[in-house]
Amino acid sequence: MSQFDNVSVVKKANVFFDGKCVSHSVLFPDGTRKTVGVIMPGSQLTFNVGAPELMEITSGTCQVKIAGDATAKTYTTGMQFNVAANSSFEIHAQDAVNYVCSFG
Amino acid sequence: MSQFDNVSVVKKANVFFDGKCVSHSVLFPDGTRKTVGVIMPGSQLTFNVGAPELMEITSGTCQVKIAGDATAKTYTTGMQFNVAANSSFEIHAQDAVNYVCSFG
Repeated sequence: MSQFDNVSVVKKANVFFDGKCVSHSVLFPDGTRKTVGVIMPGSQLTFNVGAPELMEITSGTCQVKIAGDATAKTYTTGMQFNVAANSSFEIHAQDAVNYVCSFG
Repeated sequence: MSQFDNVSVVKKANVFFDGKCVSHSVLFPDGTRKTVGVIMPGSQLTFNVGAPELMEITSGTCQVKIAGDATAKTYTTGMQFNVAANSSFEIHAQDAVNYVCSFG
């Protein structure tokens, strides 16, 4: 599924790390929110997480190290990972990494 | 209006100029398409236009020079400009410039 249907999209982007990560918020009829975003090639970023997150990689390749894990793992198109509440993860984008992030 | 309702959103971003401009495509029930995007602060970019475009600035400040115009003009939140088919425009973003682009 390459798109979300029957949703609202917030016009203003979320810009992180000087534009190395950019997302737009998508609102669903049930009141939940996701973001669709992209991380620029070569970026090495650490995200602090409040609410639990599910990150689905929709294109690209990245190494991800979740706080508490001993090593990084490689994620590619179609893979996903969970991050616990009040935690963090490091992500290293090999190319442009598109993702969908779900909260809660 | 800070969001579009009852639309589809394409998960994969459109990335231009090494990430200096990032947008997501929004599809409307009538079959038309818009993009919601952001241009990073300080970027000076030239966009080539195929189909005519309407650019609405939803936040930020930029100088825009449309091909054929003698001088650049300043656009801020709430302003818009049209670009003819098979033309181009130069945009210089003073800060993060959010926009909605309509085609055709």
